[in-house]
Amino acid sequence: MAKIEARLSKLGITLPAPPTPMGAYVPALTVGNLVFISGQLPREGDRMAVKGKVDTEVRVGFAKQGARLAALNCLAVLKAEIGDLDRVKRIVRLTGHVASVPGFIGQPEVMNGASELMVEVFGERGRHTRMTLGVPVLPSDATVAVEMIAEIEQKALKHKGTKTRKR
Amino acid sequence: MAKIEARLSKLGITLPAPPTPMGAYVPALTVGNLVFISGQLPREGDRMAVKGKVDTEVRVGFAKQGARLAALNCLAVLKAEIGDLDRVKRIVRLTGHVASVPGFIGQPEVMNGASELMVEVFGERGRHTRMTLGVPVLPSDATVAVEMIAEIEQKALKHKGTKTRKR
Amino acid sequence: MAKIEARLSKLGITLPAPPTPMGAYVPALTVGNLVFISGQLPREGDRMAVKGKVDTEVRVGFAKQGARLAALNCLAVLKAEIGDLDRVKRIVRLTGHVASVPGFIGQPEVMNGASELMVEVFGERGRHTRMTLGVPVLPSDATVAVEMIAEIEQKALKHKGTKTRKR
Repeated sequence: MAKIEARLSKLGITLPAPPTPMGAYVPALTVGNLVFISGQLPREGDRMAVKGKVDTEVRVGFAKQGARLAALNCLAVLKAEIGDLDRVKRIVRLTGHVASVPGFIGQPEVMNGASELMVEVFGERGRHTRMTLGVPVLPSDATVAVEMIAEIEQKALKHKGTKTRKR
Repeated sequence: MAKIEARLSKLGITLPAPPTPMGAYVPALTVGNLVFISGQLPREGDRMAVKGKVDTEVRVGFAKQGARLAALNCLAVLKAEIGDLDRVKRIVRLTGHVASVPGFIGQPEVMNGASELMVEVFGERGRHTRMTLGVPVLPSDATVAVEMIAEIEQKALKHKGTKTRKR
Repeated sequence: MAKIEARLSKLGITLPAPPTPMGAYVPALTVGNLVFISGQLPREGDRMAVKGKVDTEVRVGFAKQGARLAALNCLAVLKAEIGDLDRVKRIVRLTGHVASVPGFIGQPEVMNGASELMVEVFGERGRHTRMTLGVPVLPSDATVAVEMIAEIEQKALKHKGTKTRKR
């Protein structure tokens, strides 16, 4: 069994089906060894599970769960794109947008829901750079949106002599 | 005639002059085979053609035209950077910021104005990843801002086997 | 003495200590020849030096200083990541988020505080692409957040045991 799948299983995490895009775009795309994941929301299937602005309509703890759910959707999309999560070399970047009332300044705590998931699942390879900001409103009134860039191992070259290049 | 230019012509699209930056930055920059385009607004020359927040000051349909116009400006800047739009291998990423009143949640429909243009112009190569969010306000009161990353074909190596690495 | 360090010295700029992340993420990360820097705020050590929304709580001129301070923190983190700022080949991308009241539309002028610093320090290599937007609120009530991508020179391939690190 693949290592990351075993880890997910041990953590009791079942990846959801990758959400369908909400517009005229694709969920993921690979350029060289970078995989770009479209912004993901805390959706469970067609249902937006965590909605509203943090601090008034949604509490921080629940918003954090929303960030984790959006990040799970990122992983589901990533797996669909690359086939096997063991190919992940590094989670490079998370950007988190937190729907906030203007007085709320605790966005980093909310985004930790996404960040902590990455470290649980990938260990050291899950430690990423991050940008977090407050936004007034997100598509479908989602509480949080997470976008991701991941680095993957290059597929081995099949017939190019002996592969000796180290990264 | 170049293929993409022919397609633009057939679609009745004339690329505008690339807008001048609104601050101390450059409109585009190439790193390896990735081209980064600075955020573009729905400007027509010096005039901001689509201004105000969606849903109250601007209707969704007009905002969508604004997203298309901002995306056209992205293409104008891209062409100025790489010379020939036939070199585009893939539109990698669009990020869309939609100036929204807090109750407006239809940002994806607005950004489809940009996304659909990319598919019209580049076909399969125009299918990109995307992140869309609501923001309270944009520079010069623009309704929408679009930023882009594109992948281009590497220029052919001149002399096979005599690789001259550039610094 | 390294060139960029000499330039900083001549400009009277002392880089601060790189700020510690405000959540479960890392300050910087290198993929190939790209360095991703996590979003930086106008912090001086543990103190948020420039707080509040532009135009009402904070004036534009002071907000611009905040952008410069956030950009200085980016450089501090970059130096910690790559060891020597002379390795910078190009500042690729700055994204600026300016905490704004909905009526404020002068975000580019604020972000010039960050952009101008890059050109002062790196000259032509500091000329970057940029995206600037207004947000309702930032972590810890910061006035501005700056994220950065830089391109670096690849390290020369070394022979094992003959470490010739350049300064």
